[in-house]
This record gives sequence, structure tokens and C-alpha cells, in this order.
Amino acid sequence: MNNTIGNSIKMTLFGESHGKYIGAVVDGLPAGIPVNEEEIAKALAARRPQGDISTARREADEFTVASGVFRGYTCGTPLCVLIPNADVKSSDYSPMIARPGHADFTSRVRNAGFEDFRGGGHFSGRITAAAVAACSVITSALEAKGVVVGTHILSIANVSDKPFSGGADEIKSLKNDPFPLLDREREGEMKDAIASAKRDGDSVGGVLESAVCGVPAGIGDPWFATVEGALSYALFSIPAIKGVEFGRGFDLASMRGSEANDPFEIKDGKTITVTNNCGGVLGGMTTGSPVVFRTAVKPTPTIAKEQRTVDLDRNEETVAAARGRHDPCIVHRAASVVNAMTSFVVADMLTKYFGEEYLRS
Amino acid sequence: MNNTIGNSIKMTLFGESHGKYIGAVVDGLPAGIPVNEEEIAKALAARRPQGDISTARREADEFTVASGVFRGYTCGTPLCVLIPNADVKSSDYSPMIARPGHADFTSRVRNAGFEDFRGGGHFSGRITAAAVAACSVITSALEAKGVVVGTHILSIANVSDKPFSGGADEIKSLKNDPFPLLDREREGEMKDAIASAKRDGDSVGGVLESAVCGVPAGIGDPWFATVEGALSYALFSIPAIKGVEFGRGFDLASMRGSEANDPFEIKDGKTITVTNNCGGVLGGMTTGSPVVFRTAVKPTPTIAKEQRTVDLDRNEETVAAARGRHDPCIVHRAASVVNAMTSFVVADMLTKYFGEEYLRS
Amino acid sequence: MNNTIGNSIKMTLFGESHGKYIGAVVDGLPAGIPVNEEEIAKALAARRPQGDISTARREADEFTVASGVFRGYTCGTPLCVLIPNADVKSSDYSPMIARPGHADFTSRVRNAGFEDFRGGGHFSGRITAAAVAACSVITSALEAKGVVVGTHILSIANVSDKPFSGGADEIKSLKNDPFPLLDREREGEMKDAIASAKRDGDSVGGVLESAVCGVPAGIGDPWFATVEGALSYALFSIPAIKGVEFGRGFDLASMRGSEANDPFEIKDGKTITVTNNCGGVLGGMTTGSPVVFRTAVKPTPTIAKEQRTVDLDRNEETVAAARGRHDPCIVHRAASVVNAMTSFVVADMLTKYFGEEYLRS
Amino acid sequence: MNNTIGNSIKMTLFGESHGKYIGAVVDGLPAGIPVNEEEIAKALAARRPQGDISTARREADEFTVASGVFRGYTCGTPLCVLIPNADVKSSDYSPMIARPGHADFTSRVRNAGFEDFRGGGHFSGRITAAAVAACSVITSALEAKGVVVGTHILSIANVSDKPFSGGADEIKSLKNDPFPLLDREREGEMKDAIASAKRDGDSVGGVLESAVCGVPAGIGDPWFATVEGALSYALFSIPAIKGVEFGRGFDLASMRGSEANDPFEIKDGKTITVTNNCGGVLGGMTTGSPVVFRTAVKPTPTIAKEQRTVDLDRNEETVAAARGRHDPCIVHRAASVVNAMTSFVVADMLTKYFGEEYLRS
Repeated sequence: MNNTIGNSIKMTLFGESHGKYIGAVVDGLPAGIPVNEEEIAKALAARRPQGDISTARREADEFTVASGVFRGYTCGTPLCVLIPNADVKSSDYSPMIARPGHADFTSRVRNAGFEDFRGGGHFSGRITAAAVAACSVITSALEAKGVVVGTHILSIANVSDKPFSGGADEIKSLKNDPFPLLDREREGEMKDAIASAKRDGDSVGGVLESAVCGVPAGIGDPWFATVEGALSYALFSIPAIKGVEFGRGFDLASMRGSEANDPFEIKDGKTITVTNNCGGVLGGMTTGSPVVFRTAVKPTPTIAKEQRTVDLDRNEETVAAARGRHDPCIVHRAASVVNAMTSFVVADMLTKYFGEEYLRS
Repeated sequence: MNNTIGNSIKMTLFGESHGKYIGAVVDGLPAGIPVNEEEIAKALAARRPQGDISTARREADEFTVASGVFRGYTCGTPLCVLIPNADVKSSDYSPMIARPGHADFTSRVRNAGFEDFRGGGHFSGRITAAAVAACSVITSALEAKGVVVGTHILSIANVSDKPFSGGADEIKSLKNDPFPLLDREREGEMKDAIASAKRDGDSVGGVLESAVCGVPAGIGDPWFATVEGALSYALFSIPAIKGVEFGRGFDLASMRGSEANDPFEIKDGKTITVTNNCGGVLGGMTTGSPVVFRTAVKPTPTIAKEQRTVDLDRNEETVAAARGRHDPCIVHRAASVVNAMTSFVVADMLTKYFGEEYLRS
Repeated sequence: MNNTIGNSIKMTLFGESHGKYIGAVVDGLPAGIPVNEEEIAKALAARRPQGDISTARREADEFTVASGVFRGYTCGTPLCVLIPNADVKSSDYSPMIARPGHADFTSRVRNAGFEDFRGGGHFSGRITAAAVAACSVITSALEAKGVVVGTHILSIANVSDKPFSGGADEIKSLKNDPFPLLDREREGEMKDAIASAKRDGDSVGGVLESAVCGVPAGIGDPWFATVEGALSYALFSIPAIKGVEFGRGFDLASMRGSEANDPFEIKDGKTITVTNNCGGVLGGMTTGSPVVFRTAVKPTPTIAKEQRTVDLDRNEETVAAARGRHDPCIVHRAASVVNAMTSFVVADMLTKYFGEEYLRS
Repeated sequence: MNNTIGNSIKMTLFGESHGKYIGAVVDGLPAGIPVNEEEIAKALAARRPQGDISTARREADEFTVASGVFRGYTCGTPLCVLIPNADVKSSDYSPMIARPGHADFTSRVRNAGFEDFRGGGHFSGRITAAAVAACSVITSALEAKGVVVGTHILSIANVSDKPFSGGADEIKSLKNDPFPLLDREREGEMKDAIASAKRDGDSVGGVLESAVCGVPAGIGDPWFATVEGALSYALFSIPAIKGVEFGRGFDLASMRGSEANDPFEIKDGKTITVTNNCGGVLGGMTTGSPVVFRTAVKPTPTIAKEQRTVDLDRNEETVAAARGRHDPCIVHRAASVVNAMTSFVVADMLTKYFGEEYLRS
């Protein structure tokens, strides 16, 4: 199994949910990027379980910058962030019962019984904390270059937020928000839907909408590192993401060309699209408008309700019902991870295009 | 701009719509795969423009296997397929008018005015013929290993086919069908929708549904080469694809965990999922059930209707209206390309897992 | 078997000695590099067999630029150069007798009997013509940026040329010389040594010395893409190369630190090394002085003399004696190939560092 | 700067000499490889400074397996080994004086003054400890598959050991030897040469000879991942290595084809070479005989003697004379690192060929 992404910049995620550490190594950052541990802590806090609507597992997320930083700046060598695992209760999970919707079964097959199954092992959402921590350094470096990444909850269960309408400021306002919404009014209704599912021993999913502002036109490659493809490659690695669409996405399938096409106009001497149905990408390359995409987040698979399943050790059918701590909804927590992976991909593309020193501010 | 995909197997697509050749080089195929030029011709025929519902450009698609084959089998060296460009009318396209929905603008920015704009250059759908030709060798090699790839038109405009219900035989029945449907009855209505758009000087889009049967459980990597991510990376490079979803995809966002999760059961001594809402992928790895996904195809951007746009040479606003030959719908033609790219990705993943000789039959 | 090199720029070599075409695809060149077919022809001419001291195979090396060039400049898409195979006498080589020192045996094992053995197939030195043609475009682009690559024959058999002493001008003087020497006086003696070996039905080897001028300080990566490692990786792929050393190379092993270290001084306000024992590389990165290295070229393995070997088809011992056309020495011809591969690697490194537009002049 | 190597298996080295940790992450190992911490400790002990002939820096090399191991076996996720830095005396090194022969100058240029210069930072030989620790797991896994890697000191200063003559047993006998020799008698003379250099405030270099036994025939790729190229790529990243040659290497340049070629014969029904002048590699692929190569190790650049150099902060010429702890010879210590990198490359190649489960015993 491989766990490394990137071309000009590479990131490897390591660690298991109940092992010694989880962590990330980011290789290829130029020297001279400011690294502020408080910023990393804030990014981790936004991803952390939130009160009633999340798992009771307390993740302190104390972290160590193990390498790559000298006197407050990256020093040109790999940035390694370590997060020790704490508050681990391995007995919460039974090794032999494959939880429906989880990687327990596929991991068992792949790893021939040698997998660290405790708490989902390497397939736990916990691993995403390492990505969030490491990529927060990249997000800040991008902001210093005028590139802003943000995500809001477009829907949870069937409760919807309003879509993106503005530009960089609207996106910036979402930063490190643990429940990011454009229309704050929807928060109560969404949290009610989560609470309701929790009461039923069940869980809910949703859709996230993300935008990247400030990327110049012409970035991305046609065959095959398109902006859409490179982002999707990273986004689908986030547990629970099952769909990605750009601009009007699947709605385009029932539109006509004359509606779907974004006309061009000249504004301030520059060619831009009047609308942004294409999500800021044509021919795999950025148009200069915001890159806009949506990701489908399936409902958390671990639920208290009884579900038919198989005891993999005994090879016999059985029933699973989670008794451990788990999230009735991870849509809001996934927003941090979507931002982290998006920042990574955008930084990698820009570094490839503009060269290795690009991220140095 | 990069134009190469793959890890264990690599493919580079080259050529411009009105240049000497388009072609593909596939590097990393083992020696001993049968190469049948008639099979390549059939795959190309399925992608070729079809009567009234397609462009009037006649693409003979005569091809040459330039290297990599000896006595009817791959010989372990790169397979190069060349397709000379013929029936080229460069005057059909004006260089300076950016066609809305096309890569004319982004390519101009990226290539600083050195791009071969004739007929869309490297961004023409024509380039996909090279991928279809080269990957047809891989599709056949996969079939010999029991892995079957197929795609049908799930919808065009708002006319829908029935979804996949069966297994490998249903998928096989779609092979090389230039208008692949599970329910033949829908063909007339779909073609009417295309004809209607054509009459209006407009175009329509649609959704393709694809399946891969016969991949064993446990293939794919969690971080970051998930089955979903690796396929999406390739699929988004196909011009006009703007969304990809696996299993129930975006519908999962409004389901509860208890509905969305696929229970496990034991059948013939093996653990399988009862349903396949996850599209055959859990934790980024195959479950052993068919991998099922849908791709959103936007309506063809080139239309006869007038559209607002910009003359890039003169940097002034103008109006575009296609007078050349173009497709009112490319959904059905895209099916061949989706199959080609899917075969490539699946073969690459299986070769990585099982080793370099995997595809040798 | 893989046949692709490079990161920011990628090159795939394809074709077999007696197949339809050999060729190269170079992916990742920016638009705007001038492509002059006469320059390509000159580079090929320098590699071509020379009179008495080479094989009698006449290689016209007529080539086609199949893609990637528009109006005399690269257009941002893959550059594909095709060379059709001509003057092919397949009967010159017997398929079943493994020529000692050749890849006949290893290729048979690897390709399980499906290899195209005719004329050495993909393992023929002929394949290098495609690299020479394609990389000559890169060499010219580098020159336009002030980066000059050159190679001379340091020795053939035991006859030596003088080592590099000067800078860019000395290196430039070697360009496209089919028998590149710094001291022209040595030509006769070297050619006598070749002729003598030929009379004996034997062959000779030698050492090439190469230099790259004009690379700024600080290029290269410590772990693991060192300048030395990246160049060696490419150089060892050239048939017959069996050793690579940088600066004083193996001689450093018997020197003391105080002799081996290059002192630093300030010249014209810049820090430089007084000597260049390190071959222009410290810590895997360029010092700003010329990168200097030597490659050991083994004597051509195909010889007229009888040699013990094995008939691979019959699996019995036999005797081989070349009756076909072959080179008594390929050291001088290898110089072109060393330059081609060196240009490729240097361009790839500089593009990675300075960004994708670097080679555009 | 990038710090990652490998294809099927990837390794990233991180850390700075005087930072918190150095470490290695190895990504792509299959689950099921035994991990024995005592074996790792033994490998580190062989690399550790040895009495009088080494630096006085005491490296305890206490390490933590941070991830990737469960119940004594790899669990299919990245193996991360951490080594905390201890016994650090940052004042031993002055930041502004570029040590001749070191990466101080090139690192300063590359990292624009943000480099962690303390103790050589990321360019310190200390970083190799992480590679030795992590790769020892791979070395053991290879041994379980019958593939044995070993290195002896062929020469230090001008004192020579005898060359390899035997097979796997001879190579195995060298394992974890801190001063590996085939002829033990030479130890005294070699150590005297080191002691003599030390007394003079100077240092010595040498040559290492390595062999890999047990790799089947046909492994390696012609263009461009040859066995020679892939090994060299990794070997040149080891600080102080300035030359690599295979088989008879540079000596082949003055031999004739009839001497240099290795005849083939049949032994026990298998085709093998009678001699091994080619170092076990033909056409970039293994012949089935041991892969034999030599690496030139330059004398340690840090010496007590005065040397001309430049104060990089003040941009003025000055004189350097090491007062800190340093090694008068690192040839013997480099042997461990050569073995580590060789094991890595061989395992990566075999995994690519045989598939992802190859190293599982």
C-alpha cells in the first residue's frame, strides 16, 4: 500500500490510530516559509470533535515539528509533523467483526491478516489530523501568495447552506471554522439533523463546497494532470468522499451547450469568463476564475444500530453494533481535510509551474 | 504541459488535431500480450463519428503500430500507435476567437501564443482516438485475465437508460457498441434529443455509467492512490467530463448510515457485500464487487449558435458561431474513451500489485 | 520493462532495430523553443557510423517530427521524433545464439521468448539515434540559456587526449564533431588502435570526458536526486557504459582531504572554488563551476573472433563469431549519446528548479 | 530540495544534525515482514563511530519505530523510524565559514540563508543513520528471499583488501562488521593509515566493493532504470561517493572485446556467464551472477589543517580549521550506508517486477 502524494512537493502520511504516532512528512518545500505552531494548532482545532455532534474521543492533538524548521522558517528539508496517539481504548473495537462501510474487510484482505486493526488502524479518520497539521503550513504560504482555499458545508442530511457567491473574502471568512457555513442561520437545523440521527443510533452525510481563489490562468495539464483530476485524486483519498464535481458538475449533463458554456468578456483589459459554470477549469487548466467544486461525503459508517456483517476471524455471519465512541456526522470535520488536501494539490501544481522557490514568501 | 499517465505502465498522448500525426506510446507492457490490429480497428470504429448525430469530419483513423509488437505479440518494449491526420480543414477554425467552453483561451495563456490552435490542437477530442487505439490492447489483455470494463449511456439530455443490474455479461454486451445502451428502446428518444439540439444550433450532454468486473478484493491504496482517485484522475482528462461519482455517489449525502452501508454476508465461503452502494470500493480498495461509477459529460461546447466571446489576438469582445463540422453530442463517443482510460488505470493498478508480468496471458 | 526518464520533462524511447520505426517522445517542453530540423540532422550525423572505423550499416536517419512543433517552435505538446528503419538485414543476426557481452540472453529471460531479437531489437545501439535527435532540441535550448554541454574522447584503447582545461568555448568547439578531441594530434593514433583491433576481428573501448558549463550554483537535491546520481542514472542506460566518476573520481580515494578539498575564494564578488576536484558538485548540488565527469565505455561486444556461448533455443553450448556489420569501436559515437542524455538531465533539473517555462528562450 | 527515493517502495529521509529528530519513512512495504528491533540496533552499531579512528561524537542512536509495525511485523503502512538527536554541540561549527569539500556553500545558495547550518544540518553524514536503520528491515526481508547484500573495504588510502572471490557466504560474513574486510590481515595497516592522517590533521579516502547475490536473471530495465543506473542514483546520494563502476568498470576501457566479454556456458541446465567482467549486468538487466560494483569514497572534508575558504556571512576570504569532532576516515562507516541504499534499490526493483507482496516472507 502506498501513502505518498505529489510531484514537486510530496507528502507521506504514516501511523495507525492506536499506534505510537501518526504523522506526515512533506518533502520539497522551499526554505523560507514561515512556520507558526499556533497556526498549526488552530487548524487542528477546527478538525477536532465538536461537543455533542461528534465522537467522545478526546484528541489533544499535541504535535511536534520533528524536522524541517529552523528559527521559525522552513529550512529546505522535509517538514515532519508528529502527533502522538493518546486517549486510546483499543477494546472499543473488536478485531474480527468487519464494520459495514469501513475498510476493515478490504484491509484484512490486502494485508493478509497483518493489519493493525485497532481503531481502524491506518484507515481511521484520525490519520487526517496529520495531513491537516502539515498542510496548514502550505495553506498559509499560499495565502501569502494571494491564493486562498476554503470550504463550507453545502448540505448535511437535507439541510442546505447557500452556495458560494463572492470571492476571496467570503472564502477567507471560513478559515478554521469548525462548522463552516455561509449562512449561519442553517447551523441549528443542521445540528438538529445530526442529533436526530444520533438518537436513532444512526448517522448522516452531506456535501461540501470548496473554492480556490487567486490561481492565475493557465495552470494544469491537459493529459493527464488536469486541475480536476489532480484535485479529485487527492480528495477521494479522504475517507467517506464518494463523488467530486466541478462547476455545475452533474447538472451540466442536462443543460444545453448554449447554457453551459461560459461566455468570455474583457474586464480591466483581461479576458475572463462571464459566468463560471466550468468551475474555473477549461481544458484541464485554470481560467483565472475561482476553482469551485463539490464533494459528496457519505454518512459515517460506524453506527450504533445493528447491521448484518461477517466475523472475519471465524468466517461466519454475525451482527455489528458500535458500542465505542463515534461520530454521527463527519461532514463538518471533513471540511478541514478537504482544505488541507486542496492546498497541497494547488501548491504542488503552482510549484511545478513556477519553480521550486514559488512558496517562499 | 505534461501528457503522461501511469506508474507501472505509462502512457503518453501526443499530436495535434491538424498536425502530422496523433499517437500514443504505452510503456511498461510485458512481452507476450496478443496484439490484433482488427481489434484496434473495431475500438476506433466505435469512437468514430456516427451519421447524423455527429460531426461531418470523416476520420479514417488508419493507424500504424510503429513499435512494440513482434510476430503478433507485445515484445516488452513501448507500444507506439500512430494515426496520421487526414481530412483536415484548418480554415474551419479561426485562430483568434476563443470558443466558449473550450480550451482555446487557457491554452493561449499557457502556451504564450505558440500553441497549435488549428482544430483545437492538442485539446481536440481527436487526441482521444490515440488513447482508444492503444488502450484497446490493454482491454483485451484484461479480458483474458477475467477483468471486464464497460460503459453505457445512462442519460443524454434528460432521456435515461436503465442502470447496471447484472454482471460481466451485461458489461461485455456493450463492447464496441457506438451507442451503448442497456435498454435499446431508449435509442430513438435519445437520438431525437440530439437531433433537436442540432436543429437549434445547440448541443446536449449526458451521464455515462461504467463498471469494472473481475478485479479481486484488496486492490488500491488508501493514501493516495485510491481506486476512486486513480480512476478520477484519468477520467477528468477526457474533454467534457466535469463530475465523477462512485456507487450511489452524491445520493449518499442524503442517506443515513444504516441505508448507505453495504452489509457483509458470506457466499460460497467468501465475504461479499450484500448491496453495492459503495461502488465496489471501501477504504480506497476494491471489495471484489464490480467497481461502478458515473461521469458527467457536459454538452459539446462548439455550437452554431452565437455566443459572446473575445478575439484573443485583437483583445476585443466579439461573437462566435461555429461554421465548421462539430458534434451536437459527444456522450456516446466519450464512452469509448472512458473505457480506454478505465482499462489503463485498472491494468496499471493490477500490474503494480501483481507484478510486471501480470498482463501476459 | 520501462523506457521513460525524467520528472519535469519526460522522455520515452521506443522502437526495435529492425521494426518499423524507432523514436522518442519528449513530454513537458514549454511552448516557444525553436526547432530547427537542420540542427537535428547535424546531431544525427555526428552519431552516424564513420568510414572505416565503424559498422558498414548505412543509417540514413531520415526523421520526421511527428508532433509538438508548430511554425518552427515547440507548441507545448509532446515532441515526437520518428526515424524509420532502413537498410535492415535481419539475416545478419541469428536469433538463438547469445552474443557474449550483449543483452541477448538477459532480454530472452526477461521477455520470455517474445523479444524482437532481430539486430538486437530494443537493445541495439540504434535506439540511441532517437535520443540524439530529440535531445538536440534541448541542447540548443540550453545553449540559448548559456548552458553548454560537451564531450571529448579522453582515451581509446590506451591512447589519451588531454583533459578539459578551459571553459565554455572549449566545450562548444566539440559540438557535432564525429570524433571529438581536444588535441587533434591524437586522432591518428586512436584510429590506428581501432583499425588494429578490427584487423584482429576484435574491438576496443575507451573513456569519455564530459563537461557542463553555465549551470548556476545550488541546483540538485541531496537525497536523492543529486547531480551525480541523476546524471549517472541516465548515463548507465547508454549501452556499454560501465563506470561514471565525477571530478577526480576514483583518484580521490587515494588522496588526502587537504589535497582533495577545493578551497573557496572570492572572485568578482562571488564565492567560487579555486580548483574543481569535486567536479562541480558538493552535497549533490552544483557549485557553479563546470560539472565534469568521465564515463567508461566497454569495448563493443560484437566481434568477429570466435567466442564461447550458448544457443538459447537449443539450450546447448556453441561458438559465436559475428559475420554481420559491426563497430570495432563505439567510443566516439557514444559521445553524441552522452551529450544527449546529459542535456536531458540538466534541462530536467533546471526546469524543476526554475519552473516549466525555463527552456523557453 | 527533494529527499525521496523509489518507485514501488519509497523512502524519505528527514531531519537535521542538530534538530529534534532525524528519521526515515519507508512507504510501500507489504504487511508481514518481521521487524526485529535488535537487528536494527545491530545495523546502527556497525555504522557508529569506532574508537580512535572516528569522531568523538557519541551517537547513542536510540531509535523509535513510530509507525508501520504491529505485533512484530510490518502492517502494510509506512514504516517510520525516528532517532532523536543527542550529544549535540552546536558551537563546534561556525555558521559563516564554508568548509571546503562540504555542502555549506551550496546549501547556503540553495536555501537562501534559511538553512539549518548547525553540524552540517541535513547534509551531515548523521542523516545516513536513519537510512541504515530503516533499510535494515529491508535487508533482512531480502535475506529471507535468498538475496544477500554486502560490502567490504577494497582500499583505504593505498592499502588494499583482496577482491570478492566467493559467493553468498563470503558476502554474509561481512554483515554488521564495523570494519568489513575479506582479508583481516589488512586491518592494522589500514588503521595505521587512518591514524597517520589524523595525526597530520588530515583525512583519507578509499574504495568500497559491494556485491548482491541471489537476484534472478532479467531484472532491470533498459531505458532507463538499468540496474547500474538505479544503484548509482542511490549511491551518489551518500555523502563522499564520487565514482561508481560495475564489474571491471574503468578497466574495461583499455581491454579488448575478446577479453572483456563474458562467455556463456551451461551449468546445471542453466545459461550463465563463465566470468563476471560485466558485474552481473547486461543490457541493464541482471545476468543471474552477483551484481558487483565499486564506489569511490573521497577523504572526509572536515580536517584540522588550515584551508583557504570564504566567510559566507561577511563575503570575505578567510581560513578554516576544524576544531570540532570529526572523522579522519569514513570509508568503513560508509559501508553500512552503501549496503542500506543497495538493499533499498534491489528491493524496489524486485517489488516492481514480482509485485507488491514480494518482500513478505
